[in-house]
Parts: sequence; C-alpha cells; structure tokens
Amino acid sequence: MGAVTQATPKTAPIGPAIILVEPQLGENIGMAARAMANFGLSELRLVAPRDGWPNPAALAAAAGATGLLDTAKVYASTQDAVADLTFVLAPSARARGQMKRVLAPDAAMADLASRLGAGQGGGILFGRERTGLENDDIALADALVTFPVDPAFASLNLAQAVLLVGYEWVRASRGVALPFEANPSTPPASRASLIGLFEHLEAELEDAEFYPPNKKPVMSRNMRDMFHRMGPTEQDVRTWRGAIRALAELRRRRKA
Amino acid sequence: MGAVTQATPKTAPIGPAIILVEPQLGENIGMAARAMANFGLSELRLVAPRDGWPNPAALAAAAGATGLLDTAKVYASTQDAVADLTFVLAPSARARGQMKRVLAPDAAMADLASRLGAGQGGGILFGRERTGLENDDIALADALVTFPVDPAFASLNLAQAVLLVGYEWVRASRGVALPFEANPSTPPASRASLIGLFEHLEAELEDAEFYPPNKKPVMSRNMRDMFHRMGPTEQDVRTWRGAIRALAELRRRRKA
Repeated sequence: MGAVTQATPKTAPIGPAIILVEPQLGENIGMAARAMANFGLSELRLVAPRDGWPNPAALAAAAGATGLLDTAKVYASTQDAVADLTFVLAPSARARGQMKRVLAPDAAMADLASRLGAGQGGGILFGRERTGLENDDIALADALVTFPVDPAFASLNLAQAVLLVGYEWVRASRGVALPFEANPSTPPASRASLIGLFEHLEAELEDAEFYPPNKKPVMSRNMRDMFHRMGPTEQDVRTWRGAIRALAELRRRRKA
Repeated sequence: MGAVTQATPKTAPIGPAIILVEPQLGENIGMAARAMANFGLSELRLVAPRDGWPNPAALAAAAGATGLLDTAKVYASTQDAVADLTFVLAPSARARGQMKRVLAPDAAMADLASRLGAGQGGGILFGRERTGLENDDIALADALVTFPVDPAFASLNLAQAVLLVGYEWVRASRGVALPFEANPSTPPASRASLIGLFEHLEAELEDAEFYPPNKKPVMSRNMRDMFHRMGPTEQDVRTWRGAIRALAELRRRRKA
C-alpha cells in the first residue's frame, strides 16, 4: 500500500437524498431538480418514474440544473431507494393514521443535519403528483414533516415542497448565511462625522432663523435622532453637507 | 349616528400585500396566487400586468385560489401601488448598489409582523419574470430580503419567491403551529402499562431459558430501553402483549 492522502473533511454535511416516488410528469422532476439546486442539494433518486428515464421534459424544465438529472439514480421500489439510508422523512399534508412523529420543517431538518453530520445517510420521500405517498411508503419513514400551510388551501406542488425542504435544509445545516450582505462599499458614518454634520446643519439653521425662541435644543435633538435612524454612510454625510452648503449659499445669494 | 358595533379584534395581523411589478405571464400570476393561498396571504396587487387584467391564464394556474385574483387591485406604477403602505420589502438575489438593509427572510417577516401588528400597512415587491425589480422600484423599499440560495444557482421563479415569503410570514406571525399533529387517537402508553409489558415479556423469556446466567438484569434494562425509544401507545402495548402470548403458547404447544 502506498501513502494514503487524507481527504479534506467536509465543512458541511452532504445534503439528504431527495427521493421522488413514481413521479408522473418529467416537467415536475425538472422543476424539483431546479429547487434542489437553489439550495445546494445534489442527490436525486427516482422510484419508477412513469415516463421512464432519462426524460427530455425534465431536462427542459430544470433551468440548467442538469447535473442533478444526469446523476439521478432510478429504483424499482421505494424500499430499494431507501435501503442504504438510516433516517427517512416523509412530507405530508395530513395525518396518516400511523403513529409517526410529526415534525415542523425546521425541526426535521435540524434533526437530519445532526444525523448527516454524524455520518448517517438521510433521505426525504416525495409522493406522486396526484395521490401523494401511499401508506406503504409512509411506513418506511421515521417521521412525517408538515408545512404550516392554510388547512383550507394545503396543496403544495412537488417542486414547492422540495423548495421548502431545501430552504430549511440550508438554514439547519449552514446557518443563515446570505448570498450577499448590505453594500459594504462605503462604511457607516462615524459619530465624529455625524456630529460634524449636525453642527454644520444647526449653525446654518440658526443663521437662517429657523428655530423658534428656546426651541433649538429640543428641535436639534429630534433632528439628530432622525439622522441616527437613517443610519447614513460617510458618503451620505458628505452628500448632506454638500446639500446644506448649497442651500445656505442660495439663501445668502438671495439675501445679497 | 347609530350604535357602533366594535369589530372583533384580529388575533393575527392581516398579511402584507404581495405586489407583482409588471408581471408578464398570467400563469405566473396564478401560481403566485396559489402560493399566497398556501400561507393565508390574501392581498394581491398588480402593477401594469403586461397582458391586461383579468387574465384567464392566471385563473387557470391558480388551482382554486381565485378569490385572490377576483380582489386583486391593478396600479399604473409601483409608486402608486405602495402609496398607502408604511413599510415595503423587496426580495433580491443580489446587492443592488443601494445602501438598503439586507434581511434574511425570517428576520424580515418578524419585522413586518410587528409592524403590521401595530397597525401599519406593509407590502412586498416582486419583480418582472426576466429582469426583476428595477432600481426605481428598489428605491421605494425600506429593505431588501434575500434567500440563502446557492450563489451558483440563485434564480427562484416568481411563485417560489412568493412561497418562501409566505412560509416565513406564517412562521413569524402565527408561530409554527402545524396543520395537524401526531395521531392522537391512541395516547402514549402509561409507565404502568409498559412495566406490565416488561414483566410479562421478561417472565416468558425466563421461562424460555433465554437469559444466559447472571445476564437477566443487564439484558432486561437494554430491552426496556428499546421499548422506551420506540415510544409505544396503549394499543401498541396490547399488540406486543398479544404477540408475546402467542409466541409463548406456540412454544408450550411444541414442548407438550
């Protein structure tokens, strides 16, 4: 045996397998793949897709998430599709007459993330478009996941259910890191800059006889507070100082 | 003036207005309406929909969420559509070169829920299908909302963006109440029932000479723990007792 290179440990667990049970329309498979890609899920499993596999309609609907479709695995039964997993969840819009735990999506994904982080294999079953998961599919799951939908309008399509699961998976497994932050190109103004602005503004307002007698302190506090609520940047402070200067010049020219 | 009947106070704030800016396809308007209905949002505003209004394609795609479409209001400009609101959010997949606050969906909806709870009017702008919100639309918003999507695959369609906002709106405004709970038809087994089961099982196993010498205490603890992990109901306990009785009878008949 030669030297063994230690693989770099992953910083985040690989996501759960998304298992579509007997999906009917290729378009729905493609839209589900797109929703997976939005939230970084990469392992797609298909149980007996009605129209066979590969399916050109899936490719057309995947909006570029084709790598997922290329590597999708096809199984003859739900049981085969979950055989290598140790923890399986099943989204459901209703109680199923089985004594399954019922979890909210965030709790379910937190549980799944800790299991996958410990090296277990996890998957999430999604049912047929019209009829959902059968009781024999549900029996293979450790718990149900349900979404806080309006009971009067509870039906989510396949891609939407995958999207919500993917969203909570990212939140549970990677925290709430956002793809971008507020524009950092100019930093928030320092208090010194703000105070310079306030003094400039208040001096010009005093010169313009803006303040009623004895009102300057309270009015100044209120105006300063408005600027604090605004949270201006250094550039914003420069803009305001320029505006105040321009207005004051105008007034002086008119007076002259 | 006659007697004034006090309206019953609402227990949850009415949801934010969902404002679709220059939507192109009626189908997308319908799917957005469906996503709103999933999470109990009811106020749809349309800014200059390309194909006019009403639009039969929207009705066909709404999967029954037609009440929302019937009451949708149409505006000539984004500015008109937000004129009566005091807090406006704009989902965006990227920084926009404006100094807007950037909020995660949960933080954004929590902020919105507290404002709407205090009687303010709130709305969320969604952009055109291909080109999104223009900078002049963004300028009307108090903050951006962004989803923790994979930056390499960040594009959400209109209905999916509405769905995620609706999901977080429900979580923020109504907590995480689920549309159903675990099957309550038979309650979890009492400890007394479980202990009865354990003693029955252990007596039969002892009678069957199952335990190696001195191993009964530790093996019993392990088996009892398995049943605790299982969390059985009263009915489950009855099922197990029947199964144990049947196996023990079988063994006795064979011995006889």
